[in-house]
Amino acid sequence: MRKEEDFLAWYNDIVEKAGLTDKRYPVKGMNVWTPYGWKAMLLADTITRGLCEARGYKEVNFPLLIPETEFKKEADHIKGFGGEVYWVTHGGENKLEVRLLLRPTSETAMYPMFALWVRSHADLPLKVFQIVNTFRYETKMTRAFMRVREIHFFEGHTAQKDFEAAEAQVREDMEIFAALARELALPYLVNRRPDWDKFAGAFYSLGADTITPTGRTLQVATIHHYRENFSRPYNITYEDADGSRKHVHQTTYGMSERLMGAIVAIHGDDKGLVMPPAIAPVQVVVIPIQTKDSKEEPLEAARQIVAELKGDGLRAEADLRDMRPGAKYFDHELRGVPLRVEVGPRDLKEGTVVIVPRDTGGKNTHKRARLKEAVREEFEFLRERMLSKARQIIEDAVRLAHTVGEVKAHEGVSLIGWCGEEPCGKKVEEGADTHVLGTHEAGALPEGMPLPRECIVCGRPSPKPALAAKTY
Amino acid sequence: MRKEEDFLAWYNDIVEKAGLTDKRYPVKGMNVWTPYGWKAMLLADTITRGLCEARGYKEVNFPLLIPETEFKKEADHIKGFGGEVYWVTHGGENKLEVRLLLRPTSETAMYPMFALWVRSHADLPLKVFQIVNTFRYETKMTRAFMRVREIHFFEGHTAQKDFEAAEAQVREDMEIFAALARELALPYLVNRRPDWDKFAGAFYSLGADTITPTGRTLQVATIHHYRENFSRPYNITYEDADGSRKHVHQTTYGMSERLMGAIVAIHGDDKGLVMPPAIAPVQVVVIPIQTKDSKEEPLEAARQIVAELKGDGLRAEADLRDMRPGAKYFDHELRGVPLRVEVGPRDLKEGTVVIVPRDTGGKNTHKRARLKEAVREEFEFLRERMLSKARQIIEDAVRLAHTVGEVKAHEGVSLIGWCGEEPCGKKVEEGADTHVLGTHEAGALPEGMPLPRECIVCGRPSPKPALAAKTY
Repeated sequence: MRKEEDFLAWYNDIVEKAGLTDKRYPVKGMNVWTPYGWKAMLLADTITRGLCEARGYKEVNFPLLIPETEFKKEADHIKGFGGEVYWVTHGGENKLEVRLLLRPTSETAMYPMFALWVRSHADLPLKVFQIVNTFRYETKMTRAFMRVREIHFFEGHTAQKDFEAAEAQVREDMEIFAALARELALPYLVNRRPDWDKFAGAFYSLGADTITPTGRTLQVATIHHYRENFSRPYNITYEDADGSRKHVHQTTYGMSERLMGAIVAIHGDDKGLVMPPAIAPVQVVVIPIQTKDSKEEPLEAARQIVAELKGDGLRAEADLRDMRPGAKYFDHELRGVPLRVEVGPRDLKEGTVVIVPRDTGGKNTHKRARLKEAVREEFEFLRERMLSKARQIIEDAVRLAHTVGEVKAHEGVSLIGWCGEEPCGKKVEEGADTHVLGTHEAGALPEGMPLPRECIVCGRPSPKPALAAKTY
Repeated sequence: MRKEEDFLAWYNDIVEKAGLTDKRYPVKGMNVWTPYGWKAMLLADTITRGLCEARGYKEVNFPLLIPETEFKKEADHIKGFGGEVYWVTHGGENKLEVRLLLRPTSETAMYPMFALWVRSHADLPLKVFQIVNTFRYETKMTRAFMRVREIHFFEGHTAQKDFEAAEAQVREDMEIFAALARELALPYLVNRRPDWDKFAGAFYSLGADTITPTGRTLQVATIHHYRENFSRPYNITYEDADGSRKHVHQTTYGMSERLMGAIVAIHGDDKGLVMPPAIAPVQVVVIPIQTKDSKEEPLEAARQIVAELKGDGLRAEADLRDMRPGAKYFDHELRGVPLRVEVGPRDLKEGTVVIVPRDTGGKNTHKRARLKEAVREEFEFLRERMLSKARQIIEDAVRLAHTVGEVKAHEGVSLIGWCGEEPCGKKVEEGADTHVLGTHEAGALPEGMPLPRECIVCGRPSPKPALAAKTY
């Protein structure tokens, strides 16, 4: 498996070999989450849950099926999604009176209820989220985690008293994502999508884009400001303190299993996955190093170490299989276990353990007595190395482009001047066979890169620099 | 809200007033899980997860949509479910080549993959579970948690080397359910369903039935032994140690949001819910009792108590709203918060707190210094009282019936002699307008109740006593 030689072949191979997913399910683009992958995803969900609940979001669970009549209330939304939803037309042998669709996202399921829940300004802000699977009838080629037809999905929805409160919510959602991305060691750039690429029904859309080693970007989070675009058709109003009736302003925040795709694509190497400790199903694997003279002691020491780490709340396991250590290493490296602890007769005599981080493969000797502290330190060093290695991808991929021709010639992400007008944006997209990701809003650009001041198409001023790239 | 006067009106009222669910979603029988109810359900899921993982089950997540071609492989199964599945016929504007159905349960989604996963005896037992929503096109009247069209569902599926191994799995699943039911303070009877009521495709089915205060039963768990009924059509085989190829024997274990229905129905009272501590979203609410002379101290004490309990891993919150304590009590009683802690000036002076369990409403004074221990003791006493109160429902509801007429006349659960033959069973069901729940397998019958020895229809010997009741 050579990541550099054929990234997509490497990616497709590793997601299955490492036990994240099984793509052989008999519906294309609907994959089985196998235990290891599902555990990692649930751990990521748990982090998201904690971050949201700490900020007053409440978790709900809405029905999957949405009546066509509700779906059609917001005109742009149906235009944006109508072509890619799955339709339920029959219950048993009966044709349904109103067709039901499988949620592609839950605005049109939630907002009829928001209209019932929101009465007065005291009910605001209303902040709910759910973690569910969503469905899109993809016609493009599917790829595990990156483009699938059943999507594991997080969606936060809020109703706010006015535009400014919704703006503040957008900033809070950016903070939540920043905290999650930190745990996952994923650097990213936030771009304000061009109008022709914003979410169907949004006033504006922000996308958090990671950059993969091929130079293509992968959108891993979106935050939308809807203004009153949904509250008007769904009639979500409140009585303000002064007795007047107003429409709420709304925001949403979405993430999906693409996070898992980004983790595989960005952190993985030729040996397999590299799991960020925060979501590693197994954070530490302990390997007894046995010799002819010392068979039992290392086994017993490995068991004790696991018990101690588990007692400290860590996900640790011993690999006591009767096989060569090297063959064990191969398995755990493939699955990206962050730390390997080796314990042999010499360690036992000297009161030490050897900790091997997944990324460097170096052998770090620590005192047995401070194992727990050492493990947590090694986690943090590992996470920092993962982040800085991933950060280097951004540094390498982003280049300043002065012409559409330069955008076309560059395989990575181009930083361009753009007047902000659609005709010029479309000329870039068509002329360079790329996507305009939008104007740069957050996330550090490569150090020292000069900012373009003029649109590369029309030469008019570029109020903000924009990014263009091929996307997954 | 009078539970005794009109149970169903009470039930329907309380599930919404206590914030478990909202039934106003525009598809009948598909309800919204509101934050309080969803949190309780997730806590129950977490217990189930832990119990399963401790016994070697691995969590997976299979696609929702099942191709009609896979679904139709097991003939009895399609007969049992065909009339009540939702069909997806279109993706966007395109008619699908193969119709897809929304899983009513996942045998037919999982077993094509089991056929790929199981190769040799070393792969067995294969034990997986998933926690997902399932779908049934119910034509009967729906009722929150008890009969809905989108169902929050747990399903465990195993593949075993032979019949005996599958029998042992059935026993293990019974243990898992017993441990969960203990936490939820739910007593139950396990019945082996009559052949005409077993799961579609099963060799036999066990059902765990709780008894509600109306005397109707509510099935809250099922465990099925499939023998080779699915492994033959799905071709799930393994190479045994002797080189021969064999079909696996399979079992499944299912539970659903009906557990929540049982908790509401069995534990609730005229004041509202009574939540078992293990799944109470708020386990302890702390109420400062303020007086004219002491306003701040009780507030500060309440905050400290909550911090202490949270530090001990408990779900505690202070109710610091500026309103009368009595009005606060009303809210927390409605939601079934297991313990209320009151702290006022006198308690502060005397170094005490008052703990009020939700069920008795009695005021128990404890030393402040051992608050954490006292709370855990009170949880355990509460759970035991809940269990014994619920157990009394079984004692009162189950009566020995000697004739079909007696079964008909009794509003609760009838213990009957039954030869085990379908014609006699059907005569009981039709003559008494009841359901034969099956032969009694586990769970204590009322103390001292004599066991019937002869079939109440034909007079032949009854190898095991059976139970009959109306069901939800």
